[in-house]
Amino acid sequence: MNRQVYLDHNASTPVHPEVVAAMLPYFSERFGNPSSVHGFGREAREGLETAREQVAHFLRVGKEEVVFTSGGTESDNMAVKGVAMARRQGHIITSRIEHHAVLRAVQTLESQGFAATYLDVDGHGQVDPDALRRAIRPDTILITIMHANSEIGTIQPARELGAIAREHNIPFHMDAVQTFGKVPIDLDAFNIDMLSFSGHKIYGPKGVAGLYIRKGTKMVSIQHGGEHERRRRAGTENVAGIVGFGKAVEIRGRDMAEEAQRLTGLRDRLWQGLERRVPEVRLNGHPTQRVPGTCNVCFRHVESESIVLGLDLKGIGVSAGSACTSGNVEPSYVLVAMGVPLDWAMGAVRHSLGRSTTAADIDYVLDSTEPLVAKLRSAMPARA
Amino acid sequence: MNRQVYLDHNASTPVHPEVVAAMLPYFSERFGNPSSVHGFGREAREGLETAREQVAHFLRVGKEEVVFTSGGTESDNMAVKGVAMARRQGHIITSRIEHHAVLRAVQTLESQGFAATYLDVDGHGQVDPDALRRAIRPDTILITIMHANSEIGTIQPARELGAIAREHNIPFHMDAVQTFGKVPIDLDAFNIDMLSFSGHKIYGPKGVAGLYIRKGTKMVSIQHGGEHERRRRAGTENVAGIVGFGKAVEIRGRDMAEEAQRLTGLRDRLWQGLERRVPEVRLNGHPTQRVPGTCNVCFRHVESESIVLGLDLKGIGVSAGSACTSGNVEPSYVLVAMGVPLDWAMGAVRHSLGRSTTAADIDYVLDSTEPLVAKLRSAMPARA
Repeated sequence: MNRQVYLDHNASTPVHPEVVAAMLPYFSERFGNPSSVHGFGREAREGLETAREQVAHFLRVGKEEVVFTSGGTESDNMAVKGVAMARRQGHIITSRIEHHAVLRAVQTLESQGFAATYLDVDGHGQVDPDALRRAIRPDTILITIMHANSEIGTIQPARELGAIAREHNIPFHMDAVQTFGKVPIDLDAFNIDMLSFSGHKIYGPKGVAGLYIRKGTKMVSIQHGGEHERRRRAGTENVAGIVGFGKAVEIRGRDMAEEAQRLTGLRDRLWQGLERRVPEVRLNGHPTQRVPGTCNVCFRHVESESIVLGLDLKGIGVSAGSACTSGNVEPSYVLVAMGVPLDWAMGAVRHSLGRSTTAADIDYVLDSTEPLVAKLRSAMPARA
Repeated sequence: MNRQVYLDHNASTPVHPEVVAAMLPYFSERFGNPSSVHGFGREAREGLETAREQVAHFLRVGKEEVVFTSGGTESDNMAVKGVAMARRQGHIITSRIEHHAVLRAVQTLESQGFAATYLDVDGHGQVDPDALRRAIRPDTILITIMHANSEIGTIQPARELGAIAREHNIPFHMDAVQTFGKVPIDLDAFNIDMLSFSGHKIYGPKGVAGLYIRKGTKMVSIQHGGEHERRRRAGTENVAGIVGFGKAVEIRGRDMAEEAQRLTGLRDRLWQGLERRVPEVRLNGHPTQRVPGTCNVCFRHVESESIVLGLDLKGIGVSAGSACTSGNVEPSYVLVAMGVPLDWAMGAVRHSLGRSTTAADIDYVLDSTEPLVAKLRSAMPARA
């Protein structure tokens, strides 16, 4: 049996044992519907509201500004479409490297008559605040730019972007699925009106996420039904999942700073090792403004999938890009937007580290990658 | 400490211990993202696809016709809006007593230019198939009628309704959240094109549900993002929840028939006891065409909430209507649509029985209800 090394924490994370323990009573004991008025319902509602407090405390916002959803994708759809449908028409500004949940929501709105501008990014994957300023039109109704991209981990200049949005009184949505619980987010300093964040990227369960909605933000519900979540998101709440999410957020409040430092060290050990041991390798993303555990590299003249599958045989889990686009043989749209040449972009591999990652894991990945890349290159037809 | 008797299974159910056991490994061991290509992802995907097989087997449909969602509300929204948005305009037929997830989805579409007809129901809560036939217009694009209402449990003449839909080649969506796993549903005999069903009504976890979509049904996705669920529902799948859902469905396949018989007996014991011991009580819903465990009654000249709270003090969980409309002081729109007079409708109480319910529980509820209703009536001002 191989050693197992999971370096795909940007795709999903194992649920923290304390989170599982917190969830368990809500399956078979405190199983009521939180909308029910009787004791069984009240027990469930207490769990739900404790989780809401945990999230609100972490974000330093009001409880009533936190809505629970079924995932980052729903949060993004809710923010983008919710603001757009409240205005009925207008112009939306986003970037070329957003998650598909934002990109395709915006594209759907375009097909319904909304206008959109997709901002370019530089070679490190950053949006230029001046480009945002120039893109603003009198009819701009929403700016939606992610905090960090899941593939490369580059952190956007959120403070500068938010200041421009506020200056023009345009609602600012930030998809923080890849940064929430990993790096500090100051909603007031960044002037954020809506923030998407998810549970399963921070050792919480899949199928639970949240949307922060600043009080006074004009938006409509996109999922209709009962009067849950203060009429903003219909549907019986996933109580056990939300309780776990709240616990996961509480744990991040405790562990985040130390973990960020540790993962930055391991991430740099990985990159330095690759740079030293593998020829023709490049680092993608910003050298310093980057999510602690993310290390995306390109091996020139090698195919990503071959490395992913080769490492898989060694018990190592890495990714060719985001999990959501797996199976795609096109080069990453994120790397293309950053101007990475095709002979490099086709060999992109994302390593994303997490709680369980050790220095020995990194060394095992280095020891496995070096001969694999060499073998793959030697097996390929000679290139000009 | 009071005896605890939970008679609100239509609101939610405790998760079956076998379901919890099936879910557990998917939190911290098989935690991968099912879209990931490596071994961690494959393990998660296997769980997901096993659950899809369990559901498909139970419904006797193709695996590719089952889409997992975050709840019955999402399934209903997806079916109604997904068909409507694929057509861009047209007329929708539904009933006055649908769940709010359908009613408010249809109302939202009306505000966007679609037309709608809301069919009346008779005193038992049933839609008249001839009324459906008369409501059909050349531009009718969707018929969406529930299998059974959560408050009263009346089962609609699905076979007759479906035959009319098929005759006119109009897609037929059935919200079966309250019947799935409780009474047989023959998708082909009923000519159903889309079926909504949920996990937490059948001893599965909250936050997981499904939508059956018959192959060839023309509809668009309403949640945009990655290419999950064959591009029909974007968002990382709630793997543990879905695995639990699959197990819950498998268990229903084993237990459903016997359980239905047992619950019908207990439900009738409850009604007969109330009828014998409490003056001025009436049964709501169809006398026989009714979900096995559902017993909705009206106590004349008493307020529902007073009974719900009074029984709560005895450790008994019942409901004034559906959990989704709790806190509402209006009479139930379902009972109003059935023509129940106001002095009765204000005193509606829903008992919904389940796996754990025993004859002793029913007797305890009867022993608690009789004096409570008498006390509440004696405390009320005299009526004309």
